[in-house]
Amino acid sequence: MTEQIVFVGGKPFMNYVTAVVMQFTTSGASRVVIRSRGKFINRAVDVAEIVNSRFLIDSVKIADVKIGSEDFKNKDGRQIRVSTIDIHLDKTSPGNIETTTTEEPMIEDIPIEIITDTSTESSEEKTE
Amino acid sequence: MTEQIVFVGGKPFMNYVTAVVMQFTTSGASRVVIRSRGKFINRAVDVAEIVNSRFLIDSVKIADVKIGSEDFKNKDGRQIRVSTIDIHLDKTSPGNIETTTTEEPMIEDIPIEIITDTSTESSEEKTE
Repeated sequence: MTEQIVFVGGKPFMNYVTAVVMQFTTSGASRVVIRSRGKFINRAVDVAEIVNSRFLIDSVKIADVKIGSEDFKNKDGRQIRVSTIDIHLDKTSPGNIETTTTEEPMIEDIPIEIITDTSTESSEEKTE
Repeated sequence: MTEQIVFVGGKPFMNYVTAVVMQFTTSGASRVVIRSRGKFINRAVDVAEIVNSRFLIDSVKIADVKIGSEDFKNKDGRQIRVSTIDIHLDKTSPGNIETTTTEEPMIEDIPIEIITDTSTESSEEKTE
């Protein structure tokens, strides 16, 4: 099984969607692991859901989702814990995956909007 | 099996940790589902990890993680997609769970810090 990892961070959202799709279509991967941590975890879920429900419908599936923690020291020497996520997308069809031009959604067709809330961002919050 | 759902949103972080812990210790739940959507997904993962690794070590485990999407119309009538997560925490020990006073971490002892990045928040981003 050829497994590739796409690490989701702060770059433009569609970069990650394109990277995952190309791993399946161009690089012939049979599994792509979408990995992220901290405040970018919700983006990793968005990437997996958009690929699965808009770009590679019926040809990939979400096989597994793992969450965990990493501990490390920050630059002030404080011990920091950060949550992590690994989303395993597996190819379901045995042949090559091709995005058909008729079915392929335009980037402009994909509304991405997250529920807004006036309260504080979790990623900004510290409990010390 | 007594299953309880805790929906994670924008309230103070420790409210959710306490709610999950109390479902196991006081209400006798054998499973708690931590549910969230959109930009609060990373908080749901944080809640699950803190409960699992600091408060109820050895007495609960992360049994399953499911991700998905919800479609709905916003107030302007536009079709919106939002990602969702369900994290299943299961009790591992057959008896009652009690948080021991010697082992129980103080809230002040738990550093929560997320990797900061100067780029845009995913939750603010829209691709239209």
